[in-house]
Amino acid sequence: MARIAVTDGLSHKAIAMLENEGYEVEVRHHEPEEISNGSLTRFDAVVIRSATKLTAQQISSSLTAEGGIRFIGRAGVGVDNIDINEATKYGIVVCNTPGASTRSVVELTIGHLIASTRNIATADRNLRAGDWAKKRLRGSEIGGKRLGLLGFGRISRGVAQAARSFGMEVHAYDPYVSGENSEAIMHNDVDEIFRHCTHISVHCNLTDETRNLVNLDRISLMPGIGADGIECGNHIVSCARGGIVDEKDAVKALETGQLRTLALDVFDNEPLGDSPLLDFDSFHGTPHIAASTLEAQSRIGIEMAKLLIEFFETGETSTSLN
Amino acid sequence: MARIAVTDGLSHKAIAMLENEGYEVEVRHHEPEEISNGSLTRFDAVVIRSATKLTAQQISSSLTAEGGIRFIGRAGVGVDNIDINEATKYGIVVCNTPGASTRSVVELTIGHLIASTRNIATADRNLRAGDWAKKRLRGSEIGGKRLGLLGFGRISRGVAQAARSFGMEVHAYDPYVSGENSEAIMHNDVDEIFRHCTHISVHCNLTDETRNLVNLDRISLMPGIGADGIECGNHIVSCARGGIVDEKDAVKALETGQLRTLALDVFDNEPLGDSPLLDFDSFHGTPHIAASTLEAQSRIGIEMAKLLIEFFETGETSTSLN
Repeated sequence: MARIAVTDGLSHKAIAMLENEGYEVEVRHHEPEEISNGSLTRFDAVVIRSATKLTAQQISSSLTAEGGIRFIGRAGVGVDNIDINEATKYGIVVCNTPGASTRSVVELTIGHLIASTRNIATADRNLRAGDWAKKRLRGSEIGGKRLGLLGFGRISRGVAQAARSFGMEVHAYDPYVSGENSEAIMHNDVDEIFRHCTHISVHCNLTDETRNLVNLDRISLMPGIGADGIECGNHIVSCARGGIVDEKDAVKALETGQLRTLALDVFDNEPLGDSPLLDFDSFHGTPHIAASTLEAQSRIGIEMAKLLIEFFETGETSTSLN
Repeated sequence: MARIAVTDGLSHKAIAMLENEGYEVEVRHHEPEEISNGSLTRFDAVVIRSATKLTAQQISSSLTAEGGIRFIGRAGVGVDNIDINEATKYGIVVCNTPGASTRSVVELTIGHLIASTRNIATADRNLRAGDWAKKRLRGSEIGGKRLGLLGFGRISRGVAQAARSFGMEVHAYDPYVSGENSEAIMHNDVDEIFRHCTHISVHCNLTDETRNLVNLDRISLMPGIGADGIECGNHIVSCARGGIVDEKDAVKALETGQLRTLALDVFDNEPLGDSPLLDFDSFHGTPHIAASTLEAQSRIGIEMAKLLIEFFETGETSTSLN
């Protein structure tokens, strides 16, 4: 029976499903050097999250003349830690679980949007320090404002729907989505999103195209005055991937006040460590927890287990990334 | 022309509106003893927020044989700081601005609901302390869960609408709202809300009936397991009035874990000062800022100015509390 390496954890229910099918499942983290030295060659499949990187060299090191891995599962969404081209070269199937965490990311995005415009984290911190900062913590409403979405895939559409229920006018930019739709006002030029919107949320992958997409030049275009005439300032949220918001530029925009708030769940370097962002009360951060919910982890595990079972039963999967 | 005392501030635009009508506006806080000694007798109207209290004694001290105040305006919603019966006895009109802050309170309520179930304030605090607490901060989704609303007035209905857009099933209890409606599943017994719902939000006034409505007996009824079968724990939010959630009982429920999170914008004693609530990461607090937005304060000021102008032009107002 198939042997599966789970290097960054998977839900208990998913592992039980696989073991009930008779597969051998090893749940253990493999260090990069181990993988380079062939630690995965004795498995038929590997399931990773974001902590394991599979470079071209590591993928080829996971193959032998007789076998090695035939399936790479990413329990989650982002696959920037997998060299998919190299996997394809060797006929290895790469699958992720894109839908499983959508609702969790949508909720955290709206949570960050309101928490930052209403200073919830700052208020809580002040309260714990014995400071009743009511007068200094005047915020602004999201209702009546324009929300610009960078990227308009599954998560972004969920955010659009929630934002509309709060009375926001939703704008979006996505070069891979064509035509008009009823969910957002689409723009062909990303700068137009910045010119129109006081509130922007990032929902694209990290690619050469999107690296530093949110930079000082673009932030400088943001209007600061809401569609309702209120001087609400400019607000940016990202629960997508580090590297899309230029952190150095964001610090400059927080310094000048061109950005009134910035909320990030993702960073250039994770863990974040010491960062000039942390000098600002107007910055709010969480440690890459957009998919860290009981529900998302449960759905991710079950979806991945089903993909593995399908693969080992039929030799292929109904959806894959290559 | 009429003289108006504004004791707790009002928006600049509102004051300009009143002065343009030719009214004399004095913006200055009056201490309780001053009011008791007749400091308001030389005014025709007084506009307060929550910092000024108008007791029976203070209302009678604001009248003279020839005149004194004929109008009390509450720039905001809650009128538990005004003895309305005493005002009515002397024919003084009492008005508030109930609709002006609805959207702001709805947004903060949803913000608190997501911020607490996703540990946003804790995550931000840990990040500032150099602690990348990703693994300890697994949260839960609000979608798929039951939200119980205590009180079903204007704010509560706004929260219901937003909550439904996230996929929550909305339940409500309000003895003053009769019949069925499409916005929520109504219950006749408040305990039924606690039995059904893992998430509860408070939206009633503070009265003898509602004092300590949320107590340990009732919290103990909460199911801990979501309508979707997920062990999400129990969560309570209040942006209504201090005194409705029994804080001593809430601390006990946080200690045992029967409450997984508690988010409060209002407290028995404000400012909060030192409180056992602050010992818990599972508690999230803000200093009574639900109406502290640019938008709400602007709408409150304009609405109050219009009421004053209507009153002094016609001798009455289209809406009043007495």
